[in-house]
Amino acid sequence: MNQWGERFRLSLFGESHGAGVGVVVDGVPPGIPLTPADLQKDLDQRRPGKSDLTSARREDDRAEILSGTLEGHTTGAPICVWIANQDVRSQDYEAIAKTPRPGHADWVNHVWSKGHADLRGGGHSSGRLTAPLVAAGTIAQRILGPSIQCAAHLHQVGNRAGPPYAHGAAHLLRQVPQSPIYTGHAELERDFTTLIEQARKDLDSIGGILEFVADGVPVAWGDPFFDSLESTLSHLLFAIPAVKGVEFGAGFAAASMHGSEHNDPYVVRDGHVHAATNHAGGILGGRTTGESLRGRVAIKPASSLPGRPQASVDLETLQPAELRLKGRHDPCIAIRAVPVVQACLRIALADLALLARQQGVEGAWPPS
Amino acid sequence: MNQWGERFRLSLFGESHGAGVGVVVDGVPPGIPLTPADLQKDLDQRRPGKSDLTSARREDDRAEILSGTLEGHTTGAPICVWIANQDVRSQDYEAIAKTPRPGHADWVNHVWSKGHADLRGGGHSSGRLTAPLVAAGTIAQRILGPSIQCAAHLHQVGNRAGPPYAHGAAHLLRQVPQSPIYTGHAELERDFTTLIEQARKDLDSIGGILEFVADGVPVAWGDPFFDSLESTLSHLLFAIPAVKGVEFGAGFAAASMHGSEHNDPYVVRDGHVHAATNHAGGILGGRTTGESLRGRVAIKPASSLPGRPQASVDLETLQPAELRLKGRHDPCIAIRAVPVVQACLRIALADLALLARQQGVEGAWPPS
Amino acid sequence: MNQWGERFRLSLFGESHGAGVGVVVDGVPPGIPLTPADLQKDLDQRRPGKSDLTSARREDDRAEILSGTLEGHTTGAPICVWIANQDVRSQDYEAIAKTPRPGHADWVNHVWSKGHADLRGGGHSSGRLTAPLVAAGTIAQRILGPSIQCAAHLHQVGNRAGPPYAHGAAHLLRQVPQSPIYTGHAELERDFTTLIEQARKDLDSIGGILEFVADGVPVAWGDPFFDSLESTLSHLLFAIPAVKGVEFGAGFAAASMHGSEHNDPYVVRDGHVHAATNHAGGILGGRTTGESLRGRVAIKPASSLPGRPQASVDLETLQPAELRLKGRHDPCIAIRAVPVVQACLRIALADLALLARQQGVEGAWPPS
Amino acid sequence: MNQWGERFRLSLFGESHGAGVGVVVDGVPPGIPLTPADLQKDLDQRRPGKSDLTSARREDDRAEILSGTLEGHTTGAPICVWIANQDVRSQDYEAIAKTPRPGHADWVNHVWSKGHADLRGGGHSSGRLTAPLVAAGTIAQRILGPSIQCAAHLHQVGNRAGPPYAHGAAHLLRQVPQSPIYTGHAELERDFTTLIEQARKDLDSIGGILEFVADGVPVAWGDPFFDSLESTLSHLLFAIPAVKGVEFGAGFAAASMHGSEHNDPYVVRDGHVHAATNHAGGILGGRTTGESLRGRVAIKPASSLPGRPQASVDLETLQPAELRLKGRHDPCIAIRAVPVVQACLRIALADLALLARQQGVEGAWPPS
Repeated sequence: MNQWGERFRLSLFGESHGAGVGVVVDGVPPGIPLTPADLQKDLDQRRPGKSDLTSARREDDRAEILSGTLEGHTTGAPICVWIANQDVRSQDYEAIAKTPRPGHADWVNHVWSKGHADLRGGGHSSGRLTAPLVAAGTIAQRILGPSIQCAAHLHQVGNRAGPPYAHGAAHLLRQVPQSPIYTGHAELERDFTTLIEQARKDLDSIGGILEFVADGVPVAWGDPFFDSLESTLSHLLFAIPAVKGVEFGAGFAAASMHGSEHNDPYVVRDGHVHAATNHAGGILGGRTTGESLRGRVAIKPASSLPGRPQASVDLETLQPAELRLKGRHDPCIAIRAVPVVQACLRIALADLALLARQQGVEGAWPPS
Repeated sequence: MNQWGERFRLSLFGESHGAGVGVVVDGVPPGIPLTPADLQKDLDQRRPGKSDLTSARREDDRAEILSGTLEGHTTGAPICVWIANQDVRSQDYEAIAKTPRPGHADWVNHVWSKGHADLRGGGHSSGRLTAPLVAAGTIAQRILGPSIQCAAHLHQVGNRAGPPYAHGAAHLLRQVPQSPIYTGHAELERDFTTLIEQARKDLDSIGGILEFVADGVPVAWGDPFFDSLESTLSHLLFAIPAVKGVEFGAGFAAASMHGSEHNDPYVVRDGHVHAATNHAGGILGGRTTGESLRGRVAIKPASSLPGRPQASVDLETLQPAELRLKGRHDPCIAIRAVPVVQACLRIALADLALLARQQGVEGAWPPS
Repeated sequence: MNQWGERFRLSLFGESHGAGVGVVVDGVPPGIPLTPADLQKDLDQRRPGKSDLTSARREDDRAEILSGTLEGHTTGAPICVWIANQDVRSQDYEAIAKTPRPGHADWVNHVWSKGHADLRGGGHSSGRLTAPLVAAGTIAQRILGPSIQCAAHLHQVGNRAGPPYAHGAAHLLRQVPQSPIYTGHAELERDFTTLIEQARKDLDSIGGILEFVADGVPVAWGDPFFDSLESTLSHLLFAIPAVKGVEFGAGFAAASMHGSEHNDPYVVRDGHVHAATNHAGGILGGRTTGESLRGRVAIKPASSLPGRPQASVDLETLQPAELRLKGRHDPCIAIRAVPVVQACLRIALADLALLARQQGVEGAWPPS
Repeated sequence: MNQWGERFRLSLFGESHGAGVGVVVDGVPPGIPLTPADLQKDLDQRRPGKSDLTSARREDDRAEILSGTLEGHTTGAPICVWIANQDVRSQDYEAIAKTPRPGHADWVNHVWSKGHADLRGGGHSSGRLTAPLVAAGTIAQRILGPSIQCAAHLHQVGNRAGPPYAHGAAHLLRQVPQSPIYTGHAELERDFTTLIEQARKDLDSIGGILEFVADGVPVAWGDPFFDSLESTLSHLLFAIPAVKGVEFGAGFAAASMHGSEHNDPYVVRDGHVHAATNHAGGILGGRTTGESLRGRVAIKPASSLPGRPQASVDLETLQPAELRLKGRHDPCIAIRAVPVVQACLRIALADLALLARQQGVEGAWPPS
């Protein structure tokens, strides 16, 4: 289904080539400043058509707030954000109902819906649905307040990767918007760009890995088991199309470590208990430790390869069929996933902030 | 919170050193054969005390079914499974309320609960809570039926790994129970064992990676976004203590691939549409493709290092304190995570099976 | 919060004097015929401005389907229905932030939101939010199919009441749309009308009771306890503003009965088990019995009494203040509640239909 | 399903003639004093076998706390309460699988489960499941604290009723435990008793109406629409077997009133805004007004009529069959519903208390 959240709740709707995409956000306290312009800044980061390295589809992604605000503040009622589609070229997609695109959900959606799914541009399964997720993330950040900083950036393209967790959220929030490929590794920007441009020239695409960081999160947000921070956040991250892996702290590298190396010893710093290292990624037992919250997300190479012949089948004749896509696509969708991952981080933390508040956890929102 | 699931629902409870651990399983159709003996086989795989390579804590993990069955069949009412604790040595844990164990949730739980959490053996945050998860997985498998096979095995220990996705579920279901360390890579069993024994001798622990596979899953189970198979399953997997990463199909390796390589071309085999390769891990757009469902789970090295001095702090004086654990612990908890990951796979699929059935998806349960 | 439903899910949003009102409906199977015109017929029944006996506010209540359909059929993706507001006269409501209206939620919403709630016309708490509920009910009926008939009608106004459960759903579906006050008791229409007109002339309002009936519902939909039909439906009915009571079958009258009178004896009719009487209202143990599903809903007299002085307080000075409302209001809101109660009946049954289908109950949807 | 609640969550399980009944309660903050003895007082009020006017089944209803407490305080982990069955006489129920009891759920449960339901004593559908509900209510009251008083009492038996809302919660909490039939109308106790005894002598049963009252509830708990106090509480109340109607404030009587009479004018008393009357029952727009919270619950006459012949059918032959129950039953189950309705009131308020706290509503828990 298309609803998420226990306390900060989302209801997602829309299609890539329909009237538009949107989200209803519920559980937002009254009295928080919020205007469409507030949403636009993050949406602009996600929207296509801004450079040669992203899809040429031109969408303003202009957000309307249909409900839940009055005179620039939230009222406590559910907030419906609506983003109308503009640059829809559905004729590009006519063939795919007959010859499914490898790597896309066309075929399974066709089977699931007995032929009734909207397959145009991926329909409801499109990455375009991440635009309202980004808007929801902006609202979530308003709940968290300025003392909690959530960031993401492009950490790896192909085999080229930056040093692990080299940057804090403050650095990333400054640096990433200035980078056309949303990386905080300024010294690697050229290498990453070269790899992406080469993929595009080859009528191909390339995968990548994002890092995410949240700083300023209080101790003890989250719960063991099903409301663990990892469960909550991974649930959201794996809802993003093209995500194939999620790890926290040392992640898969922890498999190669010994406990004596991986355990983060406790120390006292400035009169407070801290971890001397942070292999845990800021989480123990599903709850925040107060250290920097850290993880990574693996993004597959975009499945659409415009101009390149791909092997598929003709669903009517069940004979092999060559597919050659037109349309406009991203050579490295990991770039535009950056603001989406950031949004998911914000959303997960807002939900756990409200949980912590309900539980009476000290330091829960509002932090002031 | 401690509830999970939309259609196949769990409510988890209990503590490591309290009276016991249990789970209420709701949404199970009436008329399914189920006895305590059915639960025991999987529970025996998870329970400690069976070899030198796992914890010496001796627990029979004897499951009682307190409700929801009659004359060896489910009635459709919720099933409460209760596993009483036996070998509880709480005195081993007295010190940790004062000097928190690195890598464990003691400290955050202490902060969260303002001192009221049960910290003995991890209390409610203990890996012991995975015993009822395993029981729930056995019940879930009864919903799926014999044509759907769910398996997991130990794939990597330290830096030593087997070939990727080398084994199907049928092989693993035969092989794994015969391996003391639950690996389907028979040829690597000795290497893995050596690494684990060395860690134990060093008063240390070591991490590992599990692979999971489900075969026989029909096409089009799952939904885009928040009921995606990846979201559903990762939510459960990250609820398991010590899990630090989850990936599907090519996973993090997809970041290094090009689309032309990662895309799985469609072919026709035996009159049915199939994918020629399976980098997707059997999932597209959050729904099953009918191919083998595949992924991996990273398990950190156990945080308890009995006999080895570790740096911590005295919470009363805020001075450095050396901690030296007694107690009985696993040198490689990845081993005992195998039946737990298998259970999560079954639970996630049972929930999506019931969703598919509600949605009228052909091929949904029961496969008969 | 503003979300409802386990399987057929609603997410409600909007304000009385904002941009409009809407709902996201999730869980609708693909392939069901649905156009805006299908929604309009029921919405037209609810909308104001059609006669002297309802509010003079003029709203077309024109429904747009923003997502979830393609070429006149559902796609299985969430359906967003949007109804823009037209006849908004917010100046009528300026005073109420300062001097709350008795019987309305102005004051509690003001307190709840610390002054940030939208109080214009009731804001998000307005009965106008029932318009999207009616649209959701129309979609729900498409899931139920034509063999299940859901109806409601005006059964009592003031002290004048019709005979109990005199009419089946088929009669009501024919008769009610022809009655300006939505009663199936044709012989009482004049009496009811006289009472309502008198109330309006007296600058007053009057309460009423609705009956609802569903015929053709299969046996064994619903669950004991928290998914009981009564819990499911009453949850929805009490969400309708102005509803003060809900009863099923004999309802409150059952308190005056003996078991020997209230019990419905089993008989065999046409080779099937039936109840000889129906004091149970078609429900036992939270599940449908296959008999006619029956109940009643009490609606309070409208709280807005235009032109009539009412006692309130000035929130700034905390002194008594006389309030005299302008605006346009219904002298008997029970009339316009008829299509809303019908919609809730449909929604509850659609949710339980999908539950029954998930549970494998025979006779569950689709009935054909 | 058998789970309820958004923030204060219940998971109910067990059967009338199985091993026992229980509930998992989640969302309880840590540090609240709670022992089995605390639960027993309310359970003793509900349990049968105490007088001639209730069932002769002898159950101690001894509650065990299986998890979630340590040293007499809650830990914040889920609390499992278990009540083992003692006086089980299943042979009394052997006939009912073949000849269903009128007014009971035997037949629909038999159909629903295709013959697999536990029908002994009603199985999972039994009123015995209200014992764990009562225990959950006791825990809920601990969340609310002593300043919020929740009470219920027997208000009507047959046609004999007390004056409406004559007693506040403080009076009822003192008076009701002293009354063998749990009425706060001391002057009517003899009349009620006479009616119930006569029904028993006639091998019959009789219905009743309960009133419930909560005093001390802060302003603005609850939400419009789906988390309205009425929706939340009615959902729970209609989960109680035998409940046929629920009303708030004036309830069904509001239908006969005019707005000028039903509206509660605002006045200032002791410097605070109050309602001069309370027809609203302490709720407007789904939220508490700070006035006394009031409502009524209609309870049908018990369906079991031991010794009295009733008409049923033989499910095998589909021929008429006379049924004559043995077993032990209540002549007026409304009596024992009193502590259950009180528990539901506490549970609903605890859930909304945690919602209010999450929303930052002033005056939310803890009140001190």
